[in-house]
Amino acid sequence: MPTYKAPVTDTLFILNDVLSIDRYANLPGFANASADMVEAVLEEGGRFCSEVLAPLNAIGDKEGCTRHADGSVTTPTGFKDAFAQYVEAGWPLLGIPEEFGGQGMPHVITCVMEEYTNAANQAFAMYPGLTQGAIAAILAKGSDEQKAKYVPNMASCKWGGTMNLTEPHCGTDLGLIRTRAVPNGDGSYAISGTKIFISSGEHDLTENIIHLVLAKTPDAPDSVKGISLFIVPKFLVNDDGSLGARNSLSCGSIEHKMGIHGNATCVMNYDGATGYMVGEENKGLAAMFIMMNAARLGVGIQGNALADVAFQNAVAYAQDRRQGRALTGPAEPEQKADTLFVHPDVRRMLMEAKAITEGMRALCLWGGLQVDLSHVAETEEERQTADDLISLLTPVIKGYGTDKGYEIATNAQQVYGGHGYIEEWGMEQFVRDARITMIYEGANGVQAMDLVGRKLAQNGGRAVQAFFAIVDKECAAAKGDAVLTDFASRLEKANGELKAATMWFMQHGMTNPNNVGAGAHSYMHIMGIVSLGLMWLRMASAAQVKLAAGGGNTSFLEAKLATARFFAERVMPEAGSLRRKIEGGCDSLMALRPDQFIAA
Amino acid sequence: MPTYKAPVTDTLFILNDVLSIDRYANLPGFANASADMVEAVLEEGGRFCSEVLAPLNAIGDKEGCTRHADGSVTTPTGFKDAFAQYVEAGWPLLGIPEEFGGQGMPHVITCVMEEYTNAANQAFAMYPGLTQGAIAAILAKGSDEQKAKYVPNMASCKWGGTMNLTEPHCGTDLGLIRTRAVPNGDGSYAISGTKIFISSGEHDLTENIIHLVLAKTPDAPDSVKGISLFIVPKFLVNDDGSLGARNSLSCGSIEHKMGIHGNATCVMNYDGATGYMVGEENKGLAAMFIMMNAARLGVGIQGNALADVAFQNAVAYAQDRRQGRALTGPAEPEQKADTLFVHPDVRRMLMEAKAITEGMRALCLWGGLQVDLSHVAETEEERQTADDLISLLTPVIKGYGTDKGYEIATNAQQVYGGHGYIEEWGMEQFVRDARITMIYEGANGVQAMDLVGRKLAQNGGRAVQAFFAIVDKECAAAKGDAVLTDFASRLEKANGELKAATMWFMQHGMTNPNNVGAGAHSYMHIMGIVSLGLMWLRMASAAQVKLAAGGGNTSFLEAKLATARFFAERVMPEAGSLRRKIEGGCDSLMALRPDQFIAA
Repeated sequence: MPTYKAPVTDTLFILNDVLSIDRYANLPGFANASADMVEAVLEEGGRFCSEVLAPLNAIGDKEGCTRHADGSVTTPTGFKDAFAQYVEAGWPLLGIPEEFGGQGMPHVITCVMEEYTNAANQAFAMYPGLTQGAIAAILAKGSDEQKAKYVPNMASCKWGGTMNLTEPHCGTDLGLIRTRAVPNGDGSYAISGTKIFISSGEHDLTENIIHLVLAKTPDAPDSVKGISLFIVPKFLVNDDGSLGARNSLSCGSIEHKMGIHGNATCVMNYDGATGYMVGEENKGLAAMFIMMNAARLGVGIQGNALADVAFQNAVAYAQDRRQGRALTGPAEPEQKADTLFVHPDVRRMLMEAKAITEGMRALCLWGGLQVDLSHVAETEEERQTADDLISLLTPVIKGYGTDKGYEIATNAQQVYGGHGYIEEWGMEQFVRDARITMIYEGANGVQAMDLVGRKLAQNGGRAVQAFFAIVDKECAAAKGDAVLTDFASRLEKANGELKAATMWFMQHGMTNPNNVGAGAHSYMHIMGIVSLGLMWLRMASAAQVKLAAGGGNTSFLEAKLATARFFAERVMPEAGSLRRKIEGGCDSLMALRPDQFIAA
Repeated sequence: MPTYKAPVTDTLFILNDVLSIDRYANLPGFANASADMVEAVLEEGGRFCSEVLAPLNAIGDKEGCTRHADGSVTTPTGFKDAFAQYVEAGWPLLGIPEEFGGQGMPHVITCVMEEYTNAANQAFAMYPGLTQGAIAAILAKGSDEQKAKYVPNMASCKWGGTMNLTEPHCGTDLGLIRTRAVPNGDGSYAISGTKIFISSGEHDLTENIIHLVLAKTPDAPDSVKGISLFIVPKFLVNDDGSLGARNSLSCGSIEHKMGIHGNATCVMNYDGATGYMVGEENKGLAAMFIMMNAARLGVGIQGNALADVAFQNAVAYAQDRRQGRALTGPAEPEQKADTLFVHPDVRRMLMEAKAITEGMRALCLWGGLQVDLSHVAETEEERQTADDLISLLTPVIKGYGTDKGYEIATNAQQVYGGHGYIEEWGMEQFVRDARITMIYEGANGVQAMDLVGRKLAQNGGRAVQAFFAIVDKECAAAKGDAVLTDFASRLEKANGELKAATMWFMQHGMTNPNNVGAGAHSYMHIMGIVSLGLMWLRMASAAQVKLAAGGGNTSFLEAKLATARFFAERVMPEAGSLRRKIEGGCDSLMALRPDQFIAA
């Protein structure tokens, strides 16, 4: 059975030595995040994830959720108790503003706990995770009354939250939604329609569930410009905060899925349910994107979390399992065989996993920090710069991060050979669970289009130009350093591929926008490679500084330098071929008529 | 629910226009394979797969196999009846030599049926598939008496067959096996030990099951040089061919797996079971490799079969599902949205699937033809050339083919968005089923090492030099053709990457063999790309000839040319980055101590 150990050492290295978050101690929230406090929080959070959540992961997969005849849903054995412990320990409150009863920690710290909880038990982590998203939307767009009425109980996870977007006939294209919201005359609306794929839609973990639902008012435009957002509570909430009548909504069924069995994925039926508009009429999509963007960063973290736990177990197996001999001669002649670790191809899979997961961890936390800075940095310019950066990187973190997360989970399973295919070893669950991260919160093709179709062009390309400049500047600085110079040159080259691809889009997108669409996925991957390259440059640089100072964990720091080298030699070369694919343009993709795909 | 339609048109194009198998009509077996006969066989076989086997695929997944208290195993609903129809129609006999009651069709034709049956229902196809492997080993290494006694009933699938290699502590490293074979004094042996992961190990489809078991005789060397192969029948067979006593072997349990639920993967316990040695003592591994090599080609076909059925369904879904608008403006303004087909990123996934599956189909059939030619070509030189080629290509077909098969199945699932993750849509089953093909019959890392560690060096590199020469020659010929010249130049370039990588291995493998091991997986993929490139050159060339002649299916042939272009522009560029990864060598892979992989 797999185990999980939170990577606290690596996290602290990133927070303290790479991001130097102590620089921001003067900013709101960061005062709560002193180095000692953060270390204590992560140690304790990591322990909780390892000891309480991880042991329930396989149980959740095996049992799944159960919907009863009355529409109620029971979570797997142990989830309710673990959730109570999670709430009792105050984990949901970590990043909640102090005015709503939270601990007001910066977002970058909550990102760490998002990683740990998802690595330990993704299906479980989704219950509080969706609630956080719903809170974010209410805080951003809700009225003061709505905030006061719903947020404190959601913040403590006394109540849960959900996002209701998808309908049977529409997912990506929300302009097609049919759910209606008819004014009741008292300021509330009657919500009617069917929503599908509603994660945590119904369960037994919380007293109430606050559904955030996209719907159309009677005279709304027939497009995405006609969507409004509504709070639709499972139990109506009285003015004194007590629970009122059961609202007319219900879970019609739960889906049988490839993975994340422990999370109830519900078909939700709204039959004239009472709902309250959040923000302005017909501006629901903008409000939903507040949740969406936070959720997309979260899904990138989730993909990396699954990669990391799968990687950890593959390392343990490779060390434990003896099979064959080193190509250079028996490593342990007294044993009947060497460990899997002697085999270069096993090393390849493990080093890829290490290079990507640690790089992604740094990227996700850098991204999380930008979310903080976009809100609380001292100057408008700094806030704008941070907002540009996280807008640009969100689709990369989500799309590249989850593509790689699935690949790494698959490779970690591969290290187990035949045993990896057997349920009881637990590795195949990671693959099945990781698979959803490439799909939900906008499939990765949608992320790629968001990147190249929206984020590149916004404000005359300001964000991507700023990104190029950061990479160039740090490469230039590192090239003077004997240890870093080779890495910096290679990163500069990869950045050059990214620039060239960007230029190619500018030159060929005008004549045919499909030229951009055709290269979107490859572009997202090049940007992922360059972003991780930047993170590895920073990690290598920080490691070298600490090594030179003679302090710190030498073994850990030397591993950082070796892994950076692996990243440069074994991951970065992909950027070149991805660029050449982009330069193939759209013609060969669009040439066939649909009926030509399969020969009659 | 997914459907399956056998790609008969494409298969016939490959057999007739690309491989021109009518050239071999003078060779044994090929006389049975006239164009008319082959077309009739494939049409009928395809119909059987679509109508009988495919509808049972989801049922098999859902129900799985059931082991009863007495050790007997029941296959899923419908399997027994479908198997009876399969036997009744004579499908198992297709490639069996006429002297054993078969139809004596060339191997290349049986490869086609292997693809179709696996695409329709992999778990089902494995029952007769394993039997074919067992027959191959007995035919190659068994005594005449053994052949007469076992082969005819196995050939008709009245009896089944299995391969018993793996034990709990050893899979890849068969030198470690512990199963013992003690002489009974009457020429038979008493076999004792536990074998795991035995596909089709116990079931209710056949009257008897002939297990082929690797075991060690009492004084055998303690390595792979001390392994012998034994026939161990479930029911002993009397001299008159009737069934005798139940042998002392049993299915101890069946594994719960990620996929292929419809096939019983058994723990087999041998408790002094009566067995009969096949071939010479201590030469069992060589005999097993006869099965293995056929099985590896078969697994490559299987990976491609799963890719194809997943692709077919993704195409249908992309045409059916409407979401969003073309980037170039509404394609069907009268509809509320365009089909998924308008989106370049959906096209990318579908075109990749088309380019790889059709290319792999050609490669598998070219490989199957080499198996035939290695046995029946007229001259020793031709037989040797064919044997060299299939030895070289087998790990590529297995390793590259199944890596890509899984990727394509995953992308096909991606086309479905959220629905792809839901069991009832059936796409996630293809991914789970495809996953095993990367693991069994030698994990893909083992394939890569077989390629670079054995196949490249054999006979002074004769096989790979011959392969280079074929590619160079056909590229040179095609470069004079205006339609093919760009493709040929690109293929020549990819072949150049392969040659450079080969040279790099020669130069750096001597100083450290890990330099070869570290690049093995990338090398296997470059060779896969070049091999498929060669197939696409041949397909494009054949298509162009037919188009110029004004005959044939224009739509189909034009699609071949367009897909070849896609392959050149969108797949071939990977060869360059793979070569650069190889040239990184082993240092960065081997640098870390095992304890440095996870920070303490």
